[in-house]
Amino acid sequence: MTKRKNSQDTKTETPGRFSRRRLLATAGGAGAAGLAAGAATGAAASRRDDGDGTPGAGADVALTTLGGTAVPFHGRHQPGITTPVQARGHLAAFDLAPGAGRREAAELLRRWSALAAELMAGRGPGGEEDLAIARDAGPASLTVTFGFGRGFFDATGLTAARPLALDPLPEFSADRLDPERSEGHLWVQIGADDALVAFNALRALQRSAARDGTAAVRWQMSGFNRSPGATARPMTTRNLMGQVDGTNNPQPSEPDFERRIFVPGDGDPAWMRNGSYLVFRRIRMLLDDWEGRSLADQERIIGRRKADGAPLTGGGETTPVDLAATGADGRPVIAANAHVRVTAPESNGGAAMLRRPFSYHDGIRSDGAPDAGLLFLAWQADPLTGFVPVQRKLDRGDALSPFLRHEASGLFAVPGGAPEGGYVGQELLEG
Amino acid sequence: MTKRKNSQDTKTETPGRFSRRRLLATAGGAGAAGLAAGAATGAAASRRDDGDGTPGAGADVALTTLGGTAVPFHGRHQPGITTPVQARGHLAAFDLAPGAGRREAAELLRRWSALAAELMAGRGPGGEEDLAIARDAGPASLTVTFGFGRGFFDATGLTAARPLALDPLPEFSADRLDPERSEGHLWVQIGADDALVAFNALRALQRSAARDGTAAVRWQMSGFNRSPGATARPMTTRNLMGQVDGTNNPQPSEPDFERRIFVPGDGDPAWMRNGSYLVFRRIRMLLDDWEGRSLADQERIIGRRKADGAPLTGGGETTPVDLAATGADGRPVIAANAHVRVTAPESNGGAAMLRRPFSYHDGIRSDGAPDAGLLFLAWQADPLTGFVPVQRKLDRGDALSPFLRHEASGLFAVPGGAPEGGYVGQELLEG
Repeated sequence: MTKRKNSQDTKTETPGRFSRRRLLATAGGAGAAGLAAGAATGAAASRRDDGDGTPGAGADVALTTLGGTAVPFHGRHQPGITTPVQARGHLAAFDLAPGAGRREAAELLRRWSALAAELMAGRGPGGEEDLAIARDAGPASLTVTFGFGRGFFDATGLTAARPLALDPLPEFSADRLDPERSEGHLWVQIGADDALVAFNALRALQRSAARDGTAAVRWQMSGFNRSPGATARPMTTRNLMGQVDGTNNPQPSEPDFERRIFVPGDGDPAWMRNGSYLVFRRIRMLLDDWEGRSLADQERIIGRRKADGAPLTGGGETTPVDLAATGADGRPVIAANAHVRVTAPESNGGAAMLRRPFSYHDGIRSDGAPDAGLLFLAWQADPLTGFVPVQRKLDRGDALSPFLRHEASGLFAVPGGAPEGGYVGQELLEG
Repeated sequence: MTKRKNSQDTKTETPGRFSRRRLLATAGGAGAAGLAAGAATGAAASRRDDGDGTPGAGADVALTTLGGTAVPFHGRHQPGITTPVQARGHLAAFDLAPGAGRREAAELLRRWSALAAELMAGRGPGGEEDLAIARDAGPASLTVTFGFGRGFFDATGLTAARPLALDPLPEFSADRLDPERSEGHLWVQIGADDALVAFNALRALQRSAARDGTAAVRWQMSGFNRSPGATARPMTTRNLMGQVDGTNNPQPSEPDFERRIFVPGDGDPAWMRNGSYLVFRRIRMLLDDWEGRSLADQERIIGRRKADGAPLTGGGETTPVDLAATGADGRPVIAANAHVRVTAPESNGGAAMLRRPFSYHDGIRSDGAPDAGLLFLAWQADPLTGFVPVQRKLDRGDALSPFLRHEASGLFAVPGGAPEGGYVGQELLEG
C-alpha cells in the first residue's frame, strides 16, 4: 500500500502493525465543482491518537490516500454529482409511511443530512452503531445525495410545490419497467471507494429512516466502477459491454456546464436553485448477444473503437466525432443508427446531460443469462431538454437498443447542497 | 492516484494523459505461500510500448501498484488460497452437460487453466474478446481457482477416484440450504482488486465453459472485501456485522500450517497432493436483529471487543483468548456459548481451517431485510478435522447462530497448482 505525504501530520509508516496508531483523515479533492480526483487540499485532521502503544490493541491505523480522501457534504451543490465516480455505489428509494407527512419528512431530512455530513467526514454521529462496518477505514470518498420523487409531494401535502420537471417521463417503446423497482418518494445515492464504507452508510441511513416508522426502503440496488489505482485512465470508465463510457460528458470547464446541469439561481421553483434533476434507468445488457457479435459489428453499432473509444472517423478518445465523414464508398463512416450519432448533442438540439453511472451485476437470471448492465444516472437542469429528447431518438432507431432492456426508471428532484447547519430540502419543507 | 517506484522501468508520471503510454505489469506479492500483501518482487515487465505519441489515442496507460500487481498461476498450490483476499470476488459452480464426459472435462480444464494464466498476467489469450472489460487495467491481483464437486466424479466415470473427503457434509439443524445454489460439478473462485477485471474473468471463463456446450453455470454469487488503501490494517477484515474477522486464522509461518491446510505430498488420493478441500457456505446475516442488540450484547455473543477485535479477556486483536479467565463474580469472562469459545481450536481438538471469505450484499429481500452476509470459504487438508467438528459444535450451542442462516453449501476438492504447460486436475483426468 502507498501513502501520500500531503501534510506535516502525515507520517510514512511501514505497512503492518503501527507503533503509533493514528487515523489520518485527509480532506481531499472533490469540492463543489471539483472533478479533480484526489487533488488533496492539504488539510489533514488527526482524528484520534489514543497512543496506548499496545501492539495490535487499537483499530485506528494510518490511512492511505484512498481511505483518507473526504468529500465535503455542505456546499452549493450536493455531493455525488460532479464528484468523480467511486468504485462502489448504492441506490435506494424510500417511501414515507402512511402516517408520515411534511413534519416527519423534514425531521428525516434533517437527520439524514447530519448523518451524511458526519459519515462523509469519517465520523459516526451515533457512536459505535453508525460507524461499525466503516471502522479502520477513512471516508474513502464517501458521498451521500438526496432527492425527491413525484410521489413525495402528494404524500406530504406539498403538491403545489411539485416542479413541472417531475412530470412522468414519456413511455418508450422498448421499456420493460418494473414499477416495484421504479420511482419512490425519496431517493438516496451512496458512493465510496470502499465497499464496507458504502454498505455502512446505507445501513446507517436505513436505520435513520426507520426510526419512528418514518420511511421504509422501496427498492435498493448496488453497482460498481473501476477501483482507483487499477488504471491511470483519468476520466472515463468502461461499461460491461467493454465500451469506454462517458467520453462526451459535459465538462465543468465548459462555459455552459453549470446552466445545463444545475437549476439556475433564478430558476423555478426557488427551492430547486443549484439543484439538478436525476434520471435513473436500470439498463440490463444482453451480454450473451453482444459478446456474440464481432468486434467490427460492435464498433459499427457504437461508432467508436472499442480499444480506446476513439470515433471511427479517427483521432483519439476525445477527438470530436465527424458525423459528416464519408468512406471510399460514399457512405457515412458513422452509420445512421450508430449509438454515437443518435446520442450526439448535434442530433438533439444541443441536449446534454452529465452521465455518472455505476455498472451492476446481480448474478444470473433463471434463464441462465447474467443479470448485469448499467445503473444509468444522468444529471440535467431540465429532463425535457436533457434525457427525454435523446431517449426519444434512441427509441426510434439506435443500433445498440436491441442489446438493452430498460427494467426500472426513476425521476428525482435533487435540491442544491445544504449550508452548514441546514439540511437538504429545507427550503421546500419549511418554505 | 499514487504510484510505487519499484523498478527502473517504472516512471512516475502525472495522472492524466501520458506522453508515453506504457503498461507496467508489476509481478507482485502473493506467491505460493505469499501472504505479504503488495510485497513487490521488483520484477517489472513492460508489456506494450506502441510509442505512437498520439495524445489520447491509446488505451495503454501507466498502472499503479493496485492495478499492476500480478499473482502467478503456476505453482505448488493454486492461487486464491493463501493470496491476500481481494476487494471483489465471484464464485461460480458449473455442471457438465449430459453428453460431456472425462475427455470434455479435461479439455475444459486445459482451456480454463490457459485462460486463467493469461488473464492473471493481464493478457487476453483470445485477443479483444477475452480482455474487453479488463482493458486499461492491469491484472489487479486477479486469481482464479478451480475445484471439483462430488457430482463431477460420477458424471465423468471417475467415481473410483472420488476422495472420501468429498462425502456429503453432515446436516446441521440450523441449515436452510437451497440445493439450486449448492454444490455443483465444477467450482471456480475469482478474486481481483478491480470489479471490472473480476467480471471480465468471470465472463471469459463462462464463455470458455459454454464452448461446444461443455458446461453451464449452476449458480453464481459475488462478494467483496475492503479496498486496498482504505485501511492500513494488514491482515484481518470486518464482516457486515462489523466484527473483525479472520484474527485466529492459521498463519503460513506456523510449523503446522502446510499440513493443516494442504493435502500432504504422500496424501491420498495422489492427484490431490498439495491441494486443499474447500467448504463454502452462504451465510445470511439477520442484520436488523443484530444491529438491534446493544454493543455489550454483541461483544458477549462474540467474546471479542467490536472496536478492535481484542478478546474480552484483554490485550489486542492477536492476544490469545483466555478461555479460563473468570470475572469478579467468579463466572467465565468468555461465556460458555460465546462464538470465540465454541470455534476455538482448543475446543475442537486443534481443528483449524483457513477462512478466506467475501462479504455479499444482494439488495433487499421481499420481507424488507437486507440479503447480505458472508460467502464463507474455509480451506483445510481434511473437512472431517476442519470444518465439520467446528460446525457441529456451533450447531449445538453458539450464541451467534440465531443471527445467521446457512442458505447454500458446497464442498469441493481443489487440486494442487498446475506446473507450466500443465493444467489443474491433469493428474486426475489423465491418470
